[in-house]
Amino acid sequence: MIVSMQERATEEQIYAVIERMEEAGVDVHRTTGTVQTILAGVGPTANIDLSVFEVLPGVLNVLRISSPYKLAGRAFRPEGTVVEFPNGVKVGAEYVAVMAGPCAIENREQIFTIAACVKAAGAGFLRGGAFKPRSSPYAFQGLGIPGLQLMHEAAQEHGLLTVTEVMEIAQIESMLPYTDLFQVGARNMQNFNLLRELGLARKPVLLKRGISATLEELLLSAEYIMAGGNYDIILCERGIRTYETSTRNTMDISAIPVLHKLSHLPVVADPSHGTGRRDMVPPMAKAAVAAGADGILVEIHPNADKAASDAAQTLYLDQFEKLVGELRVIAKAVGRTL
Amino acid sequence: MIVSMQERATEEQIYAVIERMEEAGVDVHRTTGTVQTILAGVGPTANIDLSVFEVLPGVLNVLRISSPYKLAGRAFRPEGTVVEFPNGVKVGAEYVAVMAGPCAIENREQIFTIAACVKAAGAGFLRGGAFKPRSSPYAFQGLGIPGLQLMHEAAQEHGLLTVTEVMEIAQIESMLPYTDLFQVGARNMQNFNLLRELGLARKPVLLKRGISATLEELLLSAEYIMAGGNYDIILCERGIRTYETSTRNTMDISAIPVLHKLSHLPVVADPSHGTGRRDMVPPMAKAAVAAGADGILVEIHPNADKAASDAAQTLYLDQFEKLVGELRVIAKAVGRTL
Amino acid sequence: MIVSMQERATEEQIYAVIERMEEAGVDVHRTTGTVQTILAGVGPTANIDLSVFEVLPGVLNVLRISSPYKLAGRAFRPEGTVVEFPNGVKVGAEYVAVMAGPCAIENREQIFTIAACVKAAGAGFLRGGAFKPRSSPYAFQGLGIPGLQLMHEAAQEHGLLTVTEVMEIAQIESMLPYTDLFQVGARNMQNFNLLRELGLARKPVLLKRGISATLEELLLSAEYIMAGGNYDIILCERGIRTYETSTRNTMDISAIPVLHKLSHLPVVADPSHGTGRRDMVPPMAKAAVAAGADGILVEIHPNADKAASDAAQTLYLDQFEKLVGELRVIAKAVGRTL
Amino acid sequence: MIVSMQERATEEQIYAVIERMEEAGVDVHRTTGTVQTILAGVGPTANIDLSVFEVLPGVLNVLRISSPYKLAGRAFRPEGTVVEFPNGVKVGAEYVAVMAGPCAIENREQIFTIAACVKAAGAGFLRGGAFKPRSSPYAFQGLGIPGLQLMHEAAQEHGLLTVTEVMEIAQIESMLPYTDLFQVGARNMQNFNLLRELGLARKPVLLKRGISATLEELLLSAEYIMAGGNYDIILCERGIRTYETSTRNTMDISAIPVLHKLSHLPVVADPSHGTGRRDMVPPMAKAAVAAGADGILVEIHPNADKAASDAAQTLYLDQFEKLVGELRVIAKAVGRTL
Repeated sequence: MIVSMQERATEEQIYAVIERMEEAGVDVHRTTGTVQTILAGVGPTANIDLSVFEVLPGVLNVLRISSPYKLAGRAFRPEGTVVEFPNGVKVGAEYVAVMAGPCAIENREQIFTIAACVKAAGAGFLRGGAFKPRSSPYAFQGLGIPGLQLMHEAAQEHGLLTVTEVMEIAQIESMLPYTDLFQVGARNMQNFNLLRELGLARKPVLLKRGISATLEELLLSAEYIMAGGNYDIILCERGIRTYETSTRNTMDISAIPVLHKLSHLPVVADPSHGTGRRDMVPPMAKAAVAAGADGILVEIHPNADKAASDAAQTLYLDQFEKLVGELRVIAKAVGRTL
Repeated sequence: MIVSMQERATEEQIYAVIERMEEAGVDVHRTTGTVQTILAGVGPTANIDLSVFEVLPGVLNVLRISSPYKLAGRAFRPEGTVVEFPNGVKVGAEYVAVMAGPCAIENREQIFTIAACVKAAGAGFLRGGAFKPRSSPYAFQGLGIPGLQLMHEAAQEHGLLTVTEVMEIAQIESMLPYTDLFQVGARNMQNFNLLRELGLARKPVLLKRGISATLEELLLSAEYIMAGGNYDIILCERGIRTYETSTRNTMDISAIPVLHKLSHLPVVADPSHGTGRRDMVPPMAKAAVAAGADGILVEIHPNADKAASDAAQTLYLDQFEKLVGELRVIAKAVGRTL
Repeated sequence: MIVSMQERATEEQIYAVIERMEEAGVDVHRTTGTVQTILAGVGPTANIDLSVFEVLPGVLNVLRISSPYKLAGRAFRPEGTVVEFPNGVKVGAEYVAVMAGPCAIENREQIFTIAACVKAAGAGFLRGGAFKPRSSPYAFQGLGIPGLQLMHEAAQEHGLLTVTEVMEIAQIESMLPYTDLFQVGARNMQNFNLLRELGLARKPVLLKRGISATLEELLLSAEYIMAGGNYDIILCERGIRTYETSTRNTMDISAIPVLHKLSHLPVVADPSHGTGRRDMVPPMAKAAVAAGADGILVEIHPNADKAASDAAQTLYLDQFEKLVGELRVIAKAVGRTL
Repeated sequence: MIVSMQERATEEQIYAVIERMEEAGVDVHRTTGTVQTILAGVGPTANIDLSVFEVLPGVLNVLRISSPYKLAGRAFRPEGTVVEFPNGVKVGAEYVAVMAGPCAIENREQIFTIAACVKAAGAGFLRGGAFKPRSSPYAFQGLGIPGLQLMHEAAQEHGLLTVTEVMEIAQIESMLPYTDLFQVGARNMQNFNLLRELGLARKPVLLKRGISATLEELLLSAEYIMAGGNYDIILCERGIRTYETSTRNTMDISAIPVLHKLSHLPVVADPSHGTGRRDMVPPMAKAAVAAGADGILVEIHPNADKAASDAAQTLYLDQFEKLVGELRVIAKAVGRTL
């Protein structure tokens, strides 16, 4: 950490800052320039709250030299993480993963129809939501564990892996038998209690970026899970909130190459939530793969317009099949397979 | 709701839209203009997902006429809501409420010292956190219920009311005996399961705006609580995320008059989280009261620089006492008392 | 336009609003519902300032039915605009245009070296800046018209078209002989005087999106130029300002398909300004082409690190050549040529 | 400046960075830690483009220690700048300046009526626009210099000072006789050519923050004017663009205390543009004064609803008179006069 003192800082102020830095556990190197004094703190700073120093008298500003995450940083595994599933499917390698399914699992027929389509298209993951707390207390709230059982059965029949969102610690254990990849939704990206428990779980985690989270915050949340010993994390860009209103969110495609630079973790993209509009899903899915995404997460439904939730952003099955075909060509163009 | 068709929309497309609108439960009035057709849907639209209509063929755009919240809207109680506490303190009337305390309850001495200061300054509410899930798994996580008991005892001694954050449904019942006002934090503003349970609780709720929540979303969350029968809600502006980096968040002071116009619920402001910097708390607290805030929520600590959390934004006790004196003058200038 | 009255609006208030609408030149259709009255205004509303109605007594909200732009809207030319240049090059058709060159034209050798590289890579446009007002008054301010002459000469030698930024009305005439495509920079997107003059020019215009402009505002600026009779406009996405700081701007790739849906004008993307980082230019250029961009605008320099401006985001010539090769494959994958 | 090298940076990479730093004119101090090397550059860095260093091989990140502005920084004049006008009025001292008038000067009667009202309310500045480039080419474009003459005459009659926006360098000279305070609009905040010319003018400048400008960028623009020798600058907060849509802009009240901390220049606030809604102007004006603003800029019109521009945010004259009375009480409450 670097603390820059104001030009008129007194010696007394400087000493007070040095003392606080030492209390925080770092070695302090002082450089006294002609106009200002700079204090460099060397040592473990990841857990130091730097903002405390910003408001000490005489301080101009405080800067963090090293990144606040370690396990999630690229330097920890320069060669990159490949998350391998029991059936041999790998995310983070050459293969671009396609994860598709309904926002909400509605009934047996629906999820089995979709599973067959996902398989036929050559995708490897079936996604579906079982717990759907909704903004209206009168709306469909999801089938819960019985829904997950249906999805699991459908996935088994077709050799697919399942992805589903976990929302509370209490759900983890009952979901375990039916879930290959736990999804943490955007609203829970900083639910640290939940992240801690998932760090103890022995299943991979798909961690979605919060709607107004920086990439640094996303990696800090990944760090939180990894600190518990679970290193199988897949990051997911799903759109951020900006001033632009023509799409529900602004999908930050540049997050994909930036995360690949900063971290060793695989990165997938969710163009359904990223745009909120069915007609924007195919171009943004293609853009994500072209930018290097390790996978795509999309919402599909045989009767998309009447899906129980997220209807506007859900693809029809034929649209999905067409999209996978197009993505396969793009993947090849960037040296990947799908 | 109003659906505007594209200029080249076919009759077939128009009929398909009308059919979907009727299925959604509204009466449809069609206006055929020289260049485009407009379909007005009259009836209960609050629970209709309008985005579904936006992606139907031939549709230009879809607009909601009425606000999506009812109970939280100003029209529901044009005279305004006054939240009255058992000791007779009222929030939402002439009196500007001051709620102060540490980010985290640390020990008996700390909370009793602060309670005495809060009382001496003439404030009515003691705030403090007992559950502190932190970004670092090694940091102080709060004292839990025993901490709440300490705060309750300190508040009782001085005739103060207690405000504290509830983070999970499971905490509600054990917190009840020690809590006069449940705070819902920014990260939980859309934790609908928690909101539903608080709707059944019989204690007032302080609902904080999410860091990237619109005012409409904040009011929808209030609606969610009210739908359960709990109408004693106090809204809280605490800063939003913008591109500006000189403050941790951008405190949206205009949210105060806008919420007062849109809703009947009282509105308080949290300049501690709103700015993230101790030196910005007093000017922003004054601005909030001048703009019509019904109260102020601030973090204070006898040894602010060494507070267990949020140190940079925490006021020292003497700074707090000075601030309350200044706010009293501002309150008077806008026709309020404090 | 649709004016929704508040539930408690009086007849007097309703009449006052009707009167104002009629004064504004629209026919008013009134619908009196059980809870509220809705007034639909039919007629030319593009030039009406709707916010005036929002603050009239009794008004709940005001909505625009039709888009505020006409000439720039997709309906005006459903088949899409193709901008054709004198040498037969077309932007907006199958061909994906590549426009490359230095941020600032520095000297003869520099621009001729770059022109040769642009040609060799198979690109069609040479870009370069001649006027460089800089944040420091001591920094290089560009070569002015002599610089443009150099670029024009270099372009002629290789059969390339020239793209350069015009910043003031007074520059237009002197730039005309050396410019095939006038670029309007992000800061001038709403310089309406300049747009009006360019509407009278008979050269195509590349209109960049402002750093915090909505797509609707971008199209309104295009409309402004078109109103003068110049329909040869190419829109350009170049990154918007958001809360994220890991890239200089957040490149809004979804702007490409959204603009294609809303408008008939071609859309190109500028990943250099869009990201501000050389290492992010290739993935974002590929993403843009995959999402349907009609062209790419990139900054290149033989000695990129020492470029007179924008060095950090400027590609070396070999990086550019490699990128064009990769883009050619992506273009083919989405049914285009390059 | 501080350059942090990546953990795995080679000696060769480190030397290359040191060389580039020295070329840029700074002395380099190297600290080789156990995990990473840090290079501190001491010397004049204000004109160095730090982003160039960020993309050099082996670099982790680059930080600026000192602020990029000098003349505009608080340290340059710790006691604060007071802008004094020929008639003795001072902005930046105890007195809170009120600047009011129409968005556009429309005719003699209008501006004289307003001037009389401004005077009667006890305000010191008459504002009005003479050049109004509008988004519609058919809308009223302002009266130009004859309009300014009218405003000047009206101001003279009542002993008021005039504030008006300058949009192009060519206007400066002809505006000089009629203008006491040149306003630079939000869209021109980074029109560096215009700023440079105003640096040579000998009249004070009111510099508005751009709609998506950071406070650092605002101060850099002020620096640009000051570099020309004109130190009489008044900064103006007028709302920034955020994701929130219930107000036209989000008025950043915290900009007032932050600018006062970072800079010695006076700061005024424009609640008319800051909110875009007449009913939000009074609370936000009060908030600004409570937060320490040195003045308020508001739009007023005897027939506000029919003002030629900005009607929705324009106060009626009686609303303005009432507001000034309220502001006087707030000003007193924060130790100021008005």
